[in-house]
Amino acid sequence: MSQRRKTAAAAADRGAAAAAPKPRKLNQKVVEAEYAVRGELVIKADQYRQQMEGKATGLPFKEIIACNIGNPQELGQKPLDFFRQVVALCQYPAAAATPEGQRIFAPDAIQRAQAYLASMKTTGAYTSSQGTRAVREEVAAFIERRDGYKSSAEDIYLTDGASSGVKAVIQLLISAPNDGVMIPIPQYPLYSATLTLCGGVQCGYYLDEANGWALSRAELERSLKAAQKKGVSVKALVVINPGNPTGQVLSRKNMEEVVEFCHANGVLLMADEVYQTNIYASTPFTSFKKVVHAMPKKYHNLELVSFHSVSKGFLGECGQRGGYMEVCGVDAAFRAQLLKFASISLCSNSTGQIMTGLMVNPPAEGSPSYAHYCQQRDDTLASLKRRAKVLADTLNTLSGVRCNAIEGAMYGFPMVALPPAFVAEAKKQNKQPDVLYCLRLLEQTGIVVVPGSGFGQIPGTWHFRTTILPSEAAIAELLGRMRTFHEQLMHEYGYKKSDFDAALAARAGRTPHTASRL
Amino acid sequence: MSQRRKTAAAAADRGAAAAAPKPRKLNQKVVEAEYAVRGELVIKADQYRQQMEGKATGLPFKEIIACNIGNPQELGQKPLDFFRQVVALCQYPAAAATPEGQRIFAPDAIQRAQAYLASMKTTGAYTSSQGTRAVREEVAAFIERRDGYKSSAEDIYLTDGASSGVKAVIQLLISAPNDGVMIPIPQYPLYSATLTLCGGVQCGYYLDEANGWALSRAELERSLKAAQKKGVSVKALVVINPGNPTGQVLSRKNMEEVVEFCHANGVLLMADEVYQTNIYASTPFTSFKKVVHAMPKKYHNLELVSFHSVSKGFLGECGQRGGYMEVCGVDAAFRAQLLKFASISLCSNSTGQIMTGLMVNPPAEGSPSYAHYCQQRDDTLASLKRRAKVLADTLNTLSGVRCNAIEGAMYGFPMVALPPAFVAEAKKQNKQPDVLYCLRLLEQTGIVVVPGSGFGQIPGTWHFRTTILPSEAAIAELLGRMRTFHEQLMHEYGYKKSDFDAALAARAGRTPHTASRL
Repeated sequence: MSQRRKTAAAAADRGAAAAAPKPRKLNQKVVEAEYAVRGELVIKADQYRQQMEGKATGLPFKEIIACNIGNPQELGQKPLDFFRQVVALCQYPAAAATPEGQRIFAPDAIQRAQAYLASMKTTGAYTSSQGTRAVREEVAAFIERRDGYKSSAEDIYLTDGASSGVKAVIQLLISAPNDGVMIPIPQYPLYSATLTLCGGVQCGYYLDEANGWALSRAELERSLKAAQKKGVSVKALVVINPGNPTGQVLSRKNMEEVVEFCHANGVLLMADEVYQTNIYASTPFTSFKKVVHAMPKKYHNLELVSFHSVSKGFLGECGQRGGYMEVCGVDAAFRAQLLKFASISLCSNSTGQIMTGLMVNPPAEGSPSYAHYCQQRDDTLASLKRRAKVLADTLNTLSGVRCNAIEGAMYGFPMVALPPAFVAEAKKQNKQPDVLYCLRLLEQTGIVVVPGSGFGQIPGTWHFRTTILPSEAAIAELLGRMRTFHEQLMHEYGYKKSDFDAALAARAGRTPHTASRL
Repeated sequence: MSQRRKTAAAAADRGAAAAAPKPRKLNQKVVEAEYAVRGELVIKADQYRQQMEGKATGLPFKEIIACNIGNPQELGQKPLDFFRQVVALCQYPAAAATPEGQRIFAPDAIQRAQAYLASMKTTGAYTSSQGTRAVREEVAAFIERRDGYKSSAEDIYLTDGASSGVKAVIQLLISAPNDGVMIPIPQYPLYSATLTLCGGVQCGYYLDEANGWALSRAELERSLKAAQKKGVSVKALVVINPGNPTGQVLSRKNMEEVVEFCHANGVLLMADEVYQTNIYASTPFTSFKKVVHAMPKKYHNLELVSFHSVSKGFLGECGQRGGYMEVCGVDAAFRAQLLKFASISLCSNSTGQIMTGLMVNPPAEGSPSYAHYCQQRDDTLASLKRRAKVLADTLNTLSGVRCNAIEGAMYGFPMVALPPAFVAEAKKQNKQPDVLYCLRLLEQTGIVVVPGSGFGQIPGTWHFRTTILPSEAAIAELLGRMRTFHEQLMHEYGYKKSDFDAALAARAGRTPHTASRL
C-alpha cells in the first residue's frame, strides 16, 4: 500500500463510528431472578425523585414516601449514640487521645473501641474470613445468655448483613438442578432470588393468613410431598421468625413442629431471626436454637443455621452491612467449605463486624452509657409498637382490606379485595392486579409499597407489603393519603362487600391445598 | 400405652444421644473452588499463632510474618488521617458539633463528612444498590481527570472491594458450561475460584516471565484457539495491570494489542487496575479506558469493565471493603441485570463507599489537610518502592532463585529452581514441590508465602508469591531468615547450578506453547 493510501485508510479507520453495544447472551439464572423489593415500582419512584429535584412537576404529591424497604434510618430512626461513638473511635482512635476527645466520647465507648482494636488491630486490615475473634466471642456469649445453652465462637461466621450468609448456605446446599429449599409463602424475596441464582427449586409452604400467619406441620408435609412427587430433593427449610412480610411471631408449639419435621426428614433448618428484637405482641421471641435444646436429646444435633443482622431491630444500621450466622449440627466438611467460600470474598467489612459486636453486647448495667442507651432503645421500640398498631388498625377500616395484627418485624401485609373490574383492567394492561394497584398508589400519592406477588400469595388473593417505618406524624399523614386513594379506587371500580367475601372464601378454600407452585 | 410405659419411653427419648453430624452432598463447584491465598499454609500459620499465645512453644521462631496476603495495615502501614477523620465523622457527626470537636478534626474533614451525609443522609441507611450518587460522581470526575476522556456516574457501580464486582460480572457472563474467561498465568486466584463457582472454563494465557512478565498478542491468540478447539466460547479476558502476583506494568503497546484482540474477537475486557497507584518503575500507569479512547474510533465502544479498590495503593484499607467498577460499552440489558444483581445484596457497605470517594477525591491543593495527606502518601509510596527493590535484589542473590523487577503492585513472584531430590521428596509426600517448600519455610521461619501453584505457572517451574509489605526493618530481618532457610535447604538437597539452568530452559522451552491447561 502506498504511504498516501495508508494515511487515507488510517483516517477512515479513525473516523469510523464505534459500533452500538451488542446484546449478549447472559446467564439466564441471573436474568430470571426477581427481587421485588427493589423492582419496577422503585425504579419509577426514582424517576419521580429525579423529576422533583427543585422543580414544579405537576405531580399530585410533594415527596416520595419509601415504604417498600425496611430502611429505618432513611425514614428518620436515630442511630444509637454509644454504637456510633465506638465505630467512630475505631476508625480514628486519635480522637480519644486528647482531653477534648475525652469530653466528646463516653469513657466506656473509648474503652470498647480499644478492645476491638486489640483484636482487629485496625479497621483497615482484612480480618480472618470468619470474622474477628473478639466479636465472634461476644456473639457466642450473647447467644448463651439469650438461650441458656452453650454457643461457641467457632460456630459463628460474621457476614455482610444477613444476606451474604443466606446466600453462602444456599449456594453450598444446592448441588443439582433438582435440589430444593422450602420457603414460606409469602416469603422475603432474597430466598427466591438466591434459589433462582443457584439453580435450585423453590418449594413453597403456605402460612395460614386466617390464623395469624401460623405455620402447620400438615402444610410442611404437603409441601415436602409435592416436591418429592416432582422429583425434588429438599435440602433445607427456611423459617422467618418474626415474619417478613407477615409480621407474625411463631408459637413455641409451631416451632417444635418445625424442628420435628426437619429432624424426621433430614432437612437443614435455616432460621431467619433478624427481627428478634422487633416484637410488639406479648409472645416473647424464642430462638430455634433454644427450642431445639429444650427438646429431647435426639434433636440436639439438628442441622441449624440461624441468621441475625444489625440492619433491623432498634439499630436499623442497614448501610453498615453487619450480621452473623450461627452454624450448628453440620459436619466438618460443611464448615470447611463455608469458610473457604467466605475466604474468596476475603472477609466481611470491619465496621459491620464491630456493629455486630455492639448489637450483642450493648452497654452493661451500671456503665456510663447504659441509661442513655436504654432510653434510645426503649423510645424506638415503643414508637414502633405504636406504629404497628395504628397501621394495622387503620388498614382494617378500609373497604375490602384485612390486615393481621403486626406482632413483630417491621411490616404490614394486608389482603386487598380488588374489584373484578379492576382485575380485568390489570389483565388488559398485562399486569398483575396488585402491581397495578401499587403503581396507581405511587402515581397518586408518592407512597411506595411492594405488591404481594413479589412475596407470593394464594392465587386469587392480592396483598401489598408496607413498612411501619415512617415517623408517627408521617404515618398518620400516609394512612390518610392511602385511605383517600383506596376508597376512590374502590368507588371507581364499583367495589361491593361481596368482592371481599369472595376473596376471603378464595383464601380459605385454597389454603393450603391448591396452587402447586409459588 | 400405659402412663408408665409412656414416661419410660419419653425418658429414653430424652436420654438418646444426638446423632453425629451427617455428611451432606455439597455443591461440587464450591468444593472444587481453590483459593490459595488463604489455603493450607494460612490454616497452619493460624495454628502456630494459637500455639504461641503467651506460651513457650518450642517453635524456632517468635512470630508469624504474614507475607501471603496484600494486607498492608496488618503489617503496620498507617492509614491516612484525613480519610479516617471523614469516616469517623460520618459515623458520629455530633463529634464535630462542639468547639472541642473542631480542634480534633480538620475543617475540610468536617466539610467533607457533611457533603457525604447530604447525599446518603446517614451511614445507617441502605444506599441505592449502585452506590450513593455523590461518590459515583466523584469517581466519574476522577476518571475524567486521570484519562482525559468522559466518564459518567451512571457507569459507576460501588462494590464491597473489587471482588464483589468481579464476581458479579463473571456470574452474569457465564451462561453455559462451555463459556470461558481468559485469565493470565500466573493469575490472582479470585478469578479461577469465581470461574469454578460459576461453572465456567478457565482459559489460561501465559505471561512471559523471561520478558518481565509481558503479554503478547500471539499468546492471546494461541489461548483463544486452544479454547475454541475444545468447544469453549470465550466471553471475557482478564488483564491485571499492574500485575498480581507478577508485579509488572504493561507497556502501552501491550495494552493496545489487548484492545485489538478483544475488539476483533468480541470479548469483554475485564481490567483489574486495583494497583494503579502502586507503581515503582518509570512506566506511568495508563488505564485501559484511556488506551481505548486514544485508539481509532471503532474501538471506543469496546465492552470494558475496569475495577478499582480502596484495599491497595497507599490506602491499604482492605477491611473497609470499598471499591468501584466502571462499566463501558455494554448494552442496556447487561446494565439492568448488573443493577438487579447488586440489588439482591441491597448495597455495598456505606463506609467502603465513603472511603472510595475519598480515594478518588483526596484533599485538594491548598486545603488545610493537603500537606499532611501528601506527606503520608509520599512516605508510604517511597517506602514501598524501596522495599520492592530490596526484595527483588536480595532474592536474586539466592542460589537458584530469579525474581523479575517489581515495577508495580505489592508482590514478588520469584522462580525457584528446586533440586530434583527435593522434588522427589515432595512427590513422596504427595505434595506439589512449591507447596512443600513454602510449608518448610513456614515451619522453620514463621514466614507465610503462597506457593506458585496457587496462581498457575509453567509446568516444571516453581515459584512463590511474597508481599513487599513488612516494614523496612522487618523486611531486612525477613530476607535474612529466608536466605538462611533457603541456602540450608538447597545444601541439604544437593542443589547444583545445572538445576537452575534446567529450570530456565524448561521455562523458555515451554513458553507459551505447552501446557494446555492452567
